[in-house]
Amino acid sequence: MNLKIAVLPGDGIGPEVIAQAKKALYAIGEVYNHEFVFEEALMGAIAIDKTGNPLPEQTLNLCLNTDAVLFGAIGDPKYDNNPNAKVRPEQGLLKLRKALGLFANIRPIKPYKSLIEASPLKREIIEGVDFTIFRELTGGAYFGAKTLNEEGTHASDLCEYSEEEIARIAHLAFKSAQNRKKKLTMVDKANVLETSRLWRKVVQKVGEEYKDVALDFLFVDNAAMQLILNPKQFDVILTENLFGDILSDEASVITGSIGLLASASLGEKNALFEPIHGSYPQAKGKNIANPIASILSAAMLLEHFGLCKEANVIYKAIEKAIEFKVVTVDLKSDSKFGTNEVGEFVSNFI
Amino acid sequence: MNLKIAVLPGDGIGPEVIAQAKKALYAIGEVYNHEFVFEEALMGAIAIDKTGNPLPEQTLNLCLNTDAVLFGAIGDPKYDNNPNAKVRPEQGLLKLRKALGLFANIRPIKPYKSLIEASPLKREIIEGVDFTIFRELTGGAYFGAKTLNEEGTHASDLCEYSEEEIARIAHLAFKSAQNRKKKLTMVDKANVLETSRLWRKVVQKVGEEYKDVALDFLFVDNAAMQLILNPKQFDVILTENLFGDILSDEASVITGSIGLLASASLGEKNALFEPIHGSYPQAKGKNIANPIASILSAAMLLEHFGLCKEANVIYKAIEKAIEFKVVTVDLKSDSKFGTNEVGEFVSNFI
Ligand SMILES: CC(C)[C@H](C(=O)O)[C@@H](O)C(=O)O
Ligand SMILES: CC(C)[C@H](C(=O)O)[C@@H](O)C(=O)O
Repeated sequence: MNLKIAVLPGDGIGPEVIAQAKKALYAIGEVYNHEFVFEEALMGAIAIDKTGNPLPEQTLNLCLNTDAVLFGAIGDPKYDNNPNAKVRPEQGLLKLRKALGLFANIRPIKPYKSLIEASPLKREIIEGVDFTIFRELTGGAYFGAKTLNEEGTHASDLCEYSEEEIARIAHLAFKSAQNRKKKLTMVDKANVLETSRLWRKVVQKVGEEYKDVALDFLFVDNAAMQLILNPKQFDVILTENLFGDILSDEASVITGSIGLLASASLGEKNALFEPIHGSYPQAKGKNIANPIASILSAAMLLEHFGLCKEANVIYKAIEKAIEFKVVTVDLKSDSKFGTNEVGEFVSNFI
Repeated sequence: MNLKIAVLPGDGIGPEVIAQAKKALYAIGEVYNHEFVFEEALMGAIAIDKTGNPLPEQTLNLCLNTDAVLFGAIGDPKYDNNPNAKVRPEQGLLKLRKALGLFANIRPIKPYKSLIEASPLKREIIEGVDFTIFRELTGGAYFGAKTLNEEGTHASDLCEYSEEEIARIAHLAFKSAQNRKKKLTMVDKANVLETSRLWRKVVQKVGEEYKDVALDFLFVDNAAMQLILNPKQFDVILTENLFGDILSDEASVITGSIGLLASASLGEKNALFEPIHGSYPQAKGKNIANPIASILSAAMLLEHFGLCKEANVIYKAIEKAIEFKVVTVDLKSDSKFGTNEVGEFVSNFI
C-alpha cells in the first residue's frame, strides 16, 4: 500500500514522540512492503513563532491532500497565562479539526496487564476494563460564538448542536458497540442543558436502528464518578465535545499513564491520529517523554487503512516493551530508558 | 441560639436522609440549649406532582425568610428520559439557588481514616488528602439563555460570566486558602473558552490581594486526571459552575462513597446545606440510603452559625459510627444497619 502521510510534530515533546512513531512506520513499511511517504508541516506555537499563524495555509492544504495526518502535541505555557493573547496554538488544532471535518474522536481505554500496578486505582477495579470513548469533535462550546465586551468584564461561550451533528457520530458509536459488547452509554447533562436534551432525543432515535445495542444514559457528574468507581460497566461511551475532553483525560488514569493512550479523529474523508497527552513542555528535549501513545496513534492509522496485521505487530511490540520494562520514567521511576530507546526497541521488534 | 430552618426533603431518598439530619439537630439543641424551629416545604418532583411547580411560591418565600435551608435531594427518572418535559424538578433547585443568591458552593473532600479501604484508589494516593472545592453556583451554562428551534433540530446553551460574578467567589476561595495550606488552584479551559480566559484574568487580579496564597492554573481535562493521580497536591480548587459539578462528584470517589459528602451553598444573605448525592430513586423507601452526607450538611449549618463545638460533636459521632461500622451497605456490603439505625446511632452519641 502507498500512503501519503502529513506529519505535524507540533510543540513541546511533539517532535520527539512523533520521531518514534515514524520509526515504527518505516519499519512496518520495510517488512510488509508498504510505501509511506511523510511530509512535515508546522502547526501550533511553533507555527506562530515562524509564521504568525497557528495553522499556516500550507499546512492546511497539505492535510487536505494526504491520506492521513499524524499529529504530535500542541500548546505552550507562554500563551496559557496570557488571557490577552490574540493568537493561540490551540486555534490551529481546532481549525484543522473543523477544516478536515473530523467530527468523531475515538479513544480506546484498555489497561496493559503488566501495568496494572501503575494505576492509582486498585487492581480489582481496573482488571478487565475495556471501553471506547466517542467524543464529538467539531461542535459544542469549542466552536460556538464567543464574546468579550469592550471593557473586558463580560464574556460568553455558546454551545450549539444540530440533529445531524449528533446523529452522524451516534451512528459510528452504535456500530462500534455492535462489534463490541453491545452497550452504549450516552453521557450528558440533560437535567440542565438544552443541547443535552437534544442529544438524548437524537440518540434515542438513532438507537432504534440498533436494537441489539443496549442504550443507557448518565449525567456527566455521575459519569465522572462511575469511571473511577466501576469502569468495567462501560463498553462504548458517547458524548459531546467538552464532556469528552474531560472524561477521556480522566479515564486515562485507569491505564496508569496518559502517555499510553492514542486517539483517532475521523471525518467523512479525512483522518488524524494523535496521542491524547499534551505538549508537556517541562519534558521537552530531555528524552524522557513516553513515545508509546504516539506510536500507538501510528498503529491506529494502520488499522484505519485495513492494515490490521501490521497494527497488531506494533501492539505486540509495545506490549513487549512494557513487559521487559523498556519504558520511560512515567511508568518506572528509576528507568534508564528514554524516548529514543523505547522507540528503538519497538521498531527493532517489528 | 434560635434558628429558623426551612427543610426541603425533596425527592427519592431525600426525606429519609433529611429525617436523620433533623434528629441530629434536635439532639444538639437539647444538649446545648439551642432552639431549632423546622418548617417543611415542597421542592422538586414531589412539588410538581402536588402543585405543578418545582419551586412553589410558598417554598421560595419560606426560604427567603429563614436563617438557613436544609435540603435533601432532587430528581426523578420519569423526567430524565423525557427530553420534551416542560417542567423538571431540577428547575426548582436552580431557581432557588438564583433567588437566594447562593453563588458559592463549598465541598470539602477529606477521607475518613477508617474508610481508606473503601475507596477505589490506593491507600498511598488518598492518605492525607484534604482539599475544598469552591464551585460557582449561579452563573455559567446553568443560567444562560437556552434555545431550541421550532423543528426541534437545533439547540443551544449560553455560558456567561461577568467580572463581579467571578471576583466575589474568588475572594471567598482565597480567604479560605489563607486559613488552610495557602494554595489555590483555578480550574478552567482557557485554551478554548472565552469565559475561562475571563476567569483567569479576574482570578489573577484578585490574587494580588492575597500575596500569601500560591495561585496556579489547571485545564479542566488535566484537573480531572490530577484529582485521581495525585489529589494530595490540592488545597483549594476554584472553578465555574459546570466544571465544579463534574469535578466535585469525581472527587467524591476519593472518600469511597458519595454518601459521605455534604456541601454548603452560600450567598450574601442566605445559606443552604445539602448532601452532594442525588435522589437515588432505586433506594427510595428501602432504608438503605446513607444518611451521613445529610447529617454532615446539618453540621456544616451549625458551623456556618459559629456553633463549631456543636458541629464537632456531630463530626465525632459520625467518625464513631464509621469506626464501629454502624454504616449503610454502600460502605459495608454485608451491613445490617440501615438509614434509620445510622441516624439513631449518631443522635444517641450526641
Ligand atoms: C489542546 C486542546 C485544545 C485539546 C482539546 O481540548 O480538544 C486537547 O485537550 C485534546 O483533548 O485534544
Ligand atoms: C441536580 C442538579 C441540577 C445539580 C447540579 O448539576 O448542580 C446537582 O448535580 C448538584 O451538583 O447539586
